[in-house]
Amino acid sequence: METADIGMIGLAVMGQNLVLNMADHGYTVAVYNRTTRRTTEFVNGPAAGAAVIGTETIEEFVGRLKRPRQVVVMVKAGRAVDAVLAGLIPLLDEGDIVIDGGNSHFEDSARRVKELRDRGLSFVGAGISGGEEGARNGPSIMPGGDEAAWPEVKGVLQSNGTPCCDWVGPDGSGHYTKMVHNGIEYGDMQVIAEAYHLMRVVLGMDCEQMAGAFRTWGEGLLDSYLVNITADILGHVDENGEPTLERILDAAGQKGTGKWAVISSLDLGYPLTLVAEAVYARVVSSLRDQRFEAAELVGSGVKRADGLGAGFVDDIHDALYASKIVSYAQGFMLLGAAASEYGWNLDYGRIAQLWREGCIIKAAFLDDITAAFRRRPDLPNLILDRFFAEALDKAEPGWRRVVATAVQVGLPVPAYASALAFYDSYRSKRLPANLIQAQRDYFGAHTYERVDRPRGEFFHTDWTRPGTD
Amino acid sequence: METADIGMIGLAVMGQNLVLNMADHGYTVAVYNRTTRRTTEFVNGPAAGAAVIGTETIEEFVGRLKRPRQVVVMVKAGRAVDAVLAGLIPLLDEGDIVIDGGNSHFEDSARRVKELRDRGLSFVGAGISGGEEGARNGPSIMPGGDEAAWPEVKGVLQSNGTPCCDWVGPDGSGHYTKMVHNGIEYGDMQVIAEAYHLMRVVLGMDCEQMAGAFRTWGEGLLDSYLVNITADILGHVDENGEPTLERILDAAGQKGTGKWAVISSLDLGYPLTLVAEAVYARVVSSLRDQRFEAAELVGSGVKRADGLGAGFVDDIHDALYASKIVSYAQGFMLLGAAASEYGWNLDYGRIAQLWREGCIIKAAFLDDITAAFRRRPDLPNLILDRFFAEALDKAEPGWRRVVATAVQVGLPVPAYASALAFYDSYRSKRLPANLIQAQRDYFGAHTYERVDRPRGEFFHTDWTRPGTD
Repeated sequence: METADIGMIGLAVMGQNLVLNMADHGYTVAVYNRTTRRTTEFVNGPAAGAAVIGTETIEEFVGRLKRPRQVVVMVKAGRAVDAVLAGLIPLLDEGDIVIDGGNSHFEDSARRVKELRDRGLSFVGAGISGGEEGARNGPSIMPGGDEAAWPEVKGVLQSNGTPCCDWVGPDGSGHYTKMVHNGIEYGDMQVIAEAYHLMRVVLGMDCEQMAGAFRTWGEGLLDSYLVNITADILGHVDENGEPTLERILDAAGQKGTGKWAVISSLDLGYPLTLVAEAVYARVVSSLRDQRFEAAELVGSGVKRADGLGAGFVDDIHDALYASKIVSYAQGFMLLGAAASEYGWNLDYGRIAQLWREGCIIKAAFLDDITAAFRRRPDLPNLILDRFFAEALDKAEPGWRRVVATAVQVGLPVPAYASALAFYDSYRSKRLPANLIQAQRDYFGAHTYERVDRPRGEFFHTDWTRPGTD
Repeated sequence: METADIGMIGLAVMGQNLVLNMADHGYTVAVYNRTTRRTTEFVNGPAAGAAVIGTETIEEFVGRLKRPRQVVVMVKAGRAVDAVLAGLIPLLDEGDIVIDGGNSHFEDSARRVKELRDRGLSFVGAGISGGEEGARNGPSIMPGGDEAAWPEVKGVLQSNGTPCCDWVGPDGSGHYTKMVHNGIEYGDMQVIAEAYHLMRVVLGMDCEQMAGAFRTWGEGLLDSYLVNITADILGHVDENGEPTLERILDAAGQKGTGKWAVISSLDLGYPLTLVAEAVYARVVSSLRDQRFEAAELVGSGVKRADGLGAGFVDDIHDALYASKIVSYAQGFMLLGAAASEYGWNLDYGRIAQLWREGCIIKAAFLDDITAAFRRRPDLPNLILDRFFAEALDKAEPGWRRVVATAVQVGLPVPAYASALAFYDSYRSKRLPANLIQAQRDYFGAHTYERVDRPRGEFFHTDWTRPGTD
């Protein structure tokens, strides 16, 4: 009987593409899916002729694997993963390894690492990005969990055309990194959408002109997968030669991992404002009926601005670039906060390299991030790195012009505006939070610290009686 | 032996003040605290001479209560509440009522309603706002849970000087309403802080001048507790006659319920952008060391703007008022989303009245909200009410000038800017989310809907091949 190098449970499109990818790279893969029909169709269809072994029961599947076994699980995050593990674990032997390649929540992964370790097994929570195409030809993989498994699984994870895969850290740190990646992806899509919106409405550019602008941008500082596919999208025409994009409904969906990143930032007390605004922008877009009612009642105030020349396209470029820097700065701050909270020792420069190729947010820009962390591994914020500080300084005038113009004409740029507010807050020696502390002391006796006294000394004032303390 | 009308477990400052308040209104109150010393100190101190019965054990406490018993629990949210309930429940009899007056999470309250109902007991999760002073003289109380208990507890909850207490709804709806209240409170404090920041930095006003402005505002549309205490705070001088506010450290803390509101908005997919920015603004303020490092490296670009006259103070007023309307509009949208998700039938006009007096966000403005919901009980958004639509229309020019000016001079106004972006998004017939849908379809085959086809029909395009579908 053939024995497989590795097994795959779950044959949705990502699982199938990963299997074909591994088979391409010389691995024999046993596959199992809850409904056998899908296994049969896969083995006789896309996988025909490849070193892929279909199995009908979980016992047969486990029996086909070389030991120590390596099993990749690609099923819907949440209960489905636990259900698979419940069936799988009793059949495994000490030293076997389970790799969860789905979009699991990092807390679930941390729990599973412990549960499997208690049974002599190794669990790896591996975030995988790149969509279908990445899975087929080389995704970005962010593995974390039981580090003892890394030498065992490194071969297959790094060989299968994967340009970007390296060990992240313990517990759920792999899935945490993937979660931050997804949050950043939400942000990147929103900053591009705002550029498109400004070009279309404020400058009145047509799709072909916009495609040209994005094409040019994709050859410069903004060289990235998302900017390049945006150029493709803007350039695409339908069967009548009309721009395909124009007929798409402007109500965006979301799948939850962007939201998780925002929630984690709130839990850890770190700002992830741009991603939060990006998630909310999708939410507002989806309230389309209410938007129409509001537009009828209040009127939509957006107007084309005259007197803005070609220079404004450059300003939009700068607003996008600066906002993107802020978004990544916030994302890496969050990774740092998580590392500190959960006791992970993360290599941020290496994480930026994991996103350098294969995934949705791949961009030349990530090399600059790696360089910044090479210069100062404990850099608390990218903005404090000289390269990014200078980049922001250069982009700042155009960025401000874009936000101010958008505010004046009534076109929403929540991500650009939020990023700018963060930038201006973050470099403020003085913020108005002293008033907030005074209010809290007034109504709740929360006490406050003073600028002229050491931290840790707390004061209370009877605010209704002047001259008191 | 005396028998008490009601019992209180937990004698921190809120619990003590509520007890004294109830005693003032003719109720005999038995009290119990985990550490007996605090009970003794309270009974012999602040409660001396009042109809308050100190008890040393939970058994003694329960034995002192008239039946059916009414027990208020005022302990730290979370495990402490469950610990108290675990000790208390076995001692109670069918028909007894437990009221949790702490800041419990609404999901915990929903669970406890069920747990107590299964044991023949009634649980009421009652959000209480008003700080120490409100608790002592009449707080805002938002009770929800087991409705059978309402006729029993209505007497004491509505009589003790409470200007604003009425039944909210089932499950955790009382604590949910309190959570939204707290989120709005975060937002109200932030929009006031931004006004203060603008006046101080951009207009160069001194504390006395600012106190005067807030005093005037507090007599108009912005008549509210927080605006009025802000005037007090700005007018307060220390023992040397210097403004007390100026010496307070600008690093604001947070206690979590604002954060919960944001998380719930993300879970339900509704925008709560202003509160989110307010929470993040506190977070950024607390990163004070990093701010100083950034200010040294990048420079703080904030400058006083010349040529802005007294009219700019009015503009700031309008920015604050408009942002506040947006914040409440978002808060009530969230309540509506929660009602829909959890099957609650909420009376939004009545909820606005619960906040009309006694609590931190008390404001004349809440009557306008009640009126709007009286006009249209299923109003999806306050912005769609004619009164608020007109108010926003009137405030809009000043609001835009303030945000544009702040953007140009480099002073962060995250709440005003975010509120404006929401306002402009919410009344847009067309947002750029069509591009986001196209991107998702490009890299993940997520499909999209079309503007020229009915909802529910999904399309996919091969974006790399023009003229295809």
